[in-house]
Amino acid sequence: MSEFRLSSFGRRYSGHTGILDLMTDLSSPPADPWAPYCMLGGGNPAIIPELAAAWEGGLRALVDGDGFARLVGAYDSQIGPLGFRRAIAERFAEDYGWALTERNVAVVNGSQTAAFYLINMFSGAFPDGRRRKILLPVVPEYIGYADQGLDPDCFSARRPSIQMLGERSFKYRVDFGSLEADDSIGAICVSRPTNPTGNVLTDEEVRALAAIAGARGIPLILDNAYGLPFPGIIFSDARPVWNEDIVLCMSLSKIGLPALRTGIVIAREELIEALSATSAIVSLATGSLGPAVSEPLLRSGELSRLSREVVGPYYRAKSRRALEIAEEALGDLPWAAHASEGAIFLWLWFKDLPVPSRELYLRLKSRNVVVLPGEGFFYGLEGDWAHSRECVRLNYSGPEELFARGLRIMAEELRDIYSA
Amino acid sequence: MSEFRLSSFGRRYSGHTGILDLMTDLSSPPADPWAPYCMLGGGNPAIIPELAAAWEGGLRALVDGDGFARLVGAYDSQIGPLGFRRAIAERFAEDYGWALTERNVAVVNGSQTAAFYLINMFSGAFPDGRRRKILLPVVPEYIGYADQGLDPDCFSARRPSIQMLGERSFKYRVDFGSLEADDSIGAICVSRPTNPTGNVLTDEEVRALAAIAGARGIPLILDNAYGLPFPGIIFSDARPVWNEDIVLCMSLSKIGLPALRTGIVIAREELIEALSATSAIVSLATGSLGPAVSEPLLRSGELSRLSREVVGPYYRAKSRRALEIAEEALGDLPWAAHASEGAIFLWLWFKDLPVPSRELYLRLKSRNVVVLPGEGFFYGLEGDWAHSRECVRLNYSGPEELFARGLRIMAEELRDIYSA
Repeated sequence: MSEFRLSSFGRRYSGHTGILDLMTDLSSPPADPWAPYCMLGGGNPAIIPELAAAWEGGLRALVDGDGFARLVGAYDSQIGPLGFRRAIAERFAEDYGWALTERNVAVVNGSQTAAFYLINMFSGAFPDGRRRKILLPVVPEYIGYADQGLDPDCFSARRPSIQMLGERSFKYRVDFGSLEADDSIGAICVSRPTNPTGNVLTDEEVRALAAIAGARGIPLILDNAYGLPFPGIIFSDARPVWNEDIVLCMSLSKIGLPALRTGIVIAREELIEALSATSAIVSLATGSLGPAVSEPLLRSGELSRLSREVVGPYYRAKSRRALEIAEEALGDLPWAAHASEGAIFLWLWFKDLPVPSRELYLRLKSRNVVVLPGEGFFYGLEGDWAHSRECVRLNYSGPEELFARGLRIMAEELRDIYSA
Repeated sequence: MSEFRLSSFGRRYSGHTGILDLMTDLSSPPADPWAPYCMLGGGNPAIIPELAAAWEGGLRALVDGDGFARLVGAYDSQIGPLGFRRAIAERFAEDYGWALTERNVAVVNGSQTAAFYLINMFSGAFPDGRRRKILLPVVPEYIGYADQGLDPDCFSARRPSIQMLGERSFKYRVDFGSLEADDSIGAICVSRPTNPTGNVLTDEEVRALAAIAGARGIPLILDNAYGLPFPGIIFSDARPVWNEDIVLCMSLSKIGLPALRTGIVIAREELIEALSATSAIVSLATGSLGPAVSEPLLRSGELSRLSREVVGPYYRAKSRRALEIAEEALGDLPWAAHASEGAIFLWLWFKDLPVPSRELYLRLKSRNVVVLPGEGFFYGLEGDWAHSRECVRLNYSGPEELFARGLRIMAEELRDIYSA
């Protein structure tokens, strides 16, 4: 029996990708089933008791409510329930004074799928015969975008400048001098807080990017999956920015509901209409439970409060502790950590690492420590950049003792690698 | 402010489509808010009390269970939970003797999305430079496929022969004489029971189609969303057919969980791996609640029992009653109904209808009766076929009195149309 012959689309998306590795690692058994398993890969958020209790209570109220049979037994619309979309618009209007209505809000089955739509709506072949790319003002950028384009070469990324903030701390800075958005660019895209680095672009940087986009009539896609007002995993004093040039992507995943696949897009009405039409074709309808369980908490302000008072502080403490653990474990190895301004990752840079970080990843995996090698986050760049092989992403949202064990094992491997 | 410039992909999917109309109608308010609203469009299944109680109990047990925080608070894999995939494989092995393992099973966020992947994996541009199409052995076929192809011209459909079973009853038959699957065909696709007609291809017809596919090394995509063993909305004695040439698509929607977006694909391992890779890129992870709530019922056989003893008989009775209502309402108008062998729709043909069925649809909509005009189900055909403008699809799963009222209003409009 010969294999089915796949189309170019089929070939494009069925190959080996970084995001597939990431997801496969998440659901794979440990190399050694008898030893502790240090899962520092993937993007699973922490299970925070106060948050979990809120969701459990909310879902129990739904199940016990009169409308439950109808809630799960009928298709939602292709763009999410009207009430939830209004609640989102009103929440952002109240929190930030933005002029939004439900016509500026779309629900999508996960923000990953929203990114798939947006990246392909604004890159690849255009009706005028040109090909355009998504400009990434900074890489490393979220690995999950890397292979989303129908056009495999759909990103044009820029190297940031690296600002050292101390011997063990650095921060990527947008190099605005390199940012000419000419007619070869269909959109600008950046995650803020940035996955994988924890970088948070300043309000001024975001406004400057939006202005560059606006001047060209293209959107700035701003991935706010870790940002404000929920889940609120931001440790700097940054504020959300939105205007009609910005497409703001949100998610209920990092506020504790990744299994309900609820992505949210805030954008000008014409784009929401385009997303609605696309969703009807590709997904038919949105899942109902994420919007249903979160709408009351969104309306009451409880979701913002939990984010501000529980989720943000929780990860801020985890982030500080993760850095302390890294300092203890890595000692005088040639390492530095990116400034942790948000999100749930520690981004480590090992200067002049003698092997690619992918080899470090494989060594660690064989010892029950799963991290994400940095290579997959550097895409769309022209030319070689040794730095792209010297970094790893660690998810610090899990149990501290496993994080510490993972770091100790990493330090052992690194000592071995650097001394070879 | 000028509009954002969309890529060809963006233009392709953001346009006006039949499935968008369908979904928009489903979530739109009635034309007259003071009159009864006869929603006979869309594909919402009935709320069947025994079934709703099973899901409500199952979800309550999940919420009250120890693992709930983890269930909703962690990402599932890109291809669905292992336990559920095993349960599916074992259910089909037990019910039908098929040799399946979890490696033959994929979970996708809705069977609509599964169809999007599959249609594009097997049509459009191929690495060998050719373009290939999906062969539809029979149209009318599910409207939700019509605009899924990246290549807008990705279907090659065949007219069925129309077999009259009586003055008021007919059945579409595959015209095997017209089915040359040459190298311009990338896959064959058919829904069984067929949406919109309620047609159920016989086991022999399915085997013959699979043999044609197998001989060419291409898959037969068989959409089993209404079929066996769940939801079991089949009134004929057809049995499910699967072999390595067949890609069988299932769903939890019509067994009562459309809002949980759970599609299931059963296919040879290589294709499941390709779907897994694609899902990681496009969707990241599957929703967890559909698999979690249905796995125990799947394992115990309760899902098959409910389908056989509750769901199937429920719709069989609804179908018979719908036909009686149509007979009463339409009387001596020139109408016929497709043989109702499964699914949840009555497919009516109005011979020599003086206006396109889309106009009938618009007239009815203005009177609070929503149906689906037939035009959108006839795609991929060469040449004009007057029959394609003479049919409508009615969802009969809702309250009988609204169905009857809708048919009476339809009869009034038809009398007016035919006498004009």
